[in-house]
Amino acid sequence: MSEIRKHYFLSEYCIIAEERAKRPSDFAGSDETAGENSSENCLFCGGAEENTPLATAVYKNGNIYSDTPEKRVRNWNFRCFPNLYPALSPALNLPEQQENGLQAEPGYGFHEIIVESPLHGRKLADFSDSEISELMKVYRDRTCSYITREKIRYVSLFKNSGEKAGASINHLHSQLLALPFCPPLLARELKVIRKNERCPYCSIFDIEKASPRLIHKNSEWIAFTPYSSMEPFEVWILPEKHVSYLGDCSDEILFALGDVLKNILKSYGRVLGNPPFNYMFYQLLEAPEYHLNLRLLPRISINAGFELNTGTYINTVSPERAASYLRGDLKPEERGL
Amino acid sequence: MSEIRKHYFLSEYCIIAEERAKRPSDFAGSDETAGENSSENCLFCGGAEENTPLATAVYKNGNIYSDTPEKRVRNWNFRCFPNLYPALSPALNLPEQQENGLQAEPGYGFHEIIVESPLHGRKLADFSDSEISELMKVYRDRTCSYITREKIRYVSLFKNSGEKAGASINHLHSQLLALPFCPPLLARELKVIRKNERCPYCSIFDIEKASPRLIHKNSEWIAFTPYSSMEPFEVWILPEKHVSYLGDCSDEILFALGDVLKNILKSYGRVLGNPPFNYMFYQLLEAPEYHLNLRLLPRISINAGFELNTGTYINTVSPERAASYLRGDLKPEERGL
Repeated sequence: MSEIRKHYFLSEYCIIAEERAKRPSDFAGSDETAGENSSENCLFCGGAEENTPLATAVYKNGNIYSDTPEKRVRNWNFRCFPNLYPALSPALNLPEQQENGLQAEPGYGFHEIIVESPLHGRKLADFSDSEISELMKVYRDRTCSYITREKIRYVSLFKNSGEKAGASINHLHSQLLALPFCPPLLARELKVIRKNERCPYCSIFDIEKASPRLIHKNSEWIAFTPYSSMEPFEVWILPEKHVSYLGDCSDEILFALGDVLKNILKSYGRVLGNPPFNYMFYQLLEAPEYHLNLRLLPRISINAGFELNTGTYINTVSPERAASYLRGDLKPEERGL
Repeated sequence: MSEIRKHYFLSEYCIIAEERAKRPSDFAGSDETAGENSSENCLFCGGAEENTPLATAVYKNGNIYSDTPEKRVRNWNFRCFPNLYPALSPALNLPEQQENGLQAEPGYGFHEIIVESPLHGRKLADFSDSEISELMKVYRDRTCSYITREKIRYVSLFKNSGEKAGASINHLHSQLLALPFCPPLLARELKVIRKNERCPYCSIFDIEKASPRLIHKNSEWIAFTPYSSMEPFEVWILPEKHVSYLGDCSDEILFALGDVLKNILKSYGRVLGNPPFNYMFYQLLEAPEYHLNLRLLPRISINAGFELNTGTYINTVSPERAASYLRGDLKPEERGL
């Protein structure tokens, strides 16, 4: 059982989860492409359903099923199941362990894996428009399924792609953690947002919709490199409509999200050669003032002592330059970095 | 010239420094030990002084010298010079570039390299007591030299050791950046500290001086794994005396700091096999309420989507267990991680 520990005096937390150290990795050494074309022994492949916990939601031809101990659903499109090495677990009413002057609580929560294709080696950038749109709906469904559970305050939905981005299994998947606290990053944003007359993200939309940092735009969303990008090629995807979480998004908005996400991932491939990357949804059900956004970060630079010391980032590629590469105005061979 | 950009609505910053992308690296590929025993072409070695900018401070047999255009000081113990690829630079009165609704200022500040031995391949863990004590005094001198300069609000003093910890040159050195703003991490701490009746770090000292997380203790300092460690084997080094920055430390306190720092680095070597690591000083001259501390972080895990999304860390080694390994109660082969 894991433990959520509070910082000595700040409203910050860590999750001590020793069981997670035992999770397997299919990355051999530091070779980023190891096993990319091999599905042998892959736990997430179609046909290997018995090797994972029972699926809580299996998406198949537009319907939703779940596994039973007697029968696992086969031939699925998307498959969601509890992480076998969870950082948090759903048992309630656990004893609290306390030390003098220190605060901890049991690691209550949910930790789910969303496998995004039964086929090994597929990439989101190669999904059809309808496939990526279906995946956005899965993200909405899974968010809604956890965000209203007892004591849950935040749903963290993210993808780690590639070993340097923290993936341990090299098969297309995302993860969802449902937490019993509002994370400090969101809490800090919310505090400022609540003091503003106008939603800061609505203002950002107005600034960036025609800025030199704009990369892609459709009827519902813009994708841009943020003005104070912390690392090279960081991208934010922001909806024009003020919605606070995925549950507020119509099918049309999600279709348009799939379009812009795929566009950015294709640009990453073209400019950076399929780099390791993370993307993360920032969303809050409990605060309608919050404005849903999705952020992408290729993992091509290292946070070193300065970043750890100050929380300030040194970025060697200006967001304006990064956007011009991602739009295709400049070719990778002209990068000269 | 770099630029300090403010976040759209938070008091957070990034430094856009495109020139830094051109800095050389002597790490070939991802081999952590590449070039470890080779001093050929190393810019930081004794004898290669002409290949760096003029030294601002050269420590030699207890005296301090500086280079002149006519003569570079040879046979030194420690050598400090401006970074050839600085993130910040000392030119004042530069024009500000502004975009509607966005804030930026010129990248004013100082960026210094502190080379800690003329010999290639030396490690701090192998320093004599007197050598490491002298280095702590160099850290104090360099901090004091920058912390009172015009418009400087913070001195960030840190070491990146190993490629995975962000080092680009594999020769023993630390870096100092003097900034024209108080970094958000320190500002957040200070805000809480000022609301407390008692210094929270003084309370931490009392909690940890006899806790299961204590690793090493001497007359002036304790070293421990913090209760809410963000990553495995994170260590904090804290003085009993409430001092706010290195300038407040006597020679005796610095001698004792060298002792505890060397002890922890030796433990890292024994338990983790000389991992890449960072260490960072947290210190404020302008706020006597602040309590100087030094933090070490081996870079053996990856911050992935969850950490980026929430600012919350999943740590797979409890600080109590990490401390027992670092103390030597448990041997590395018993780790079973």
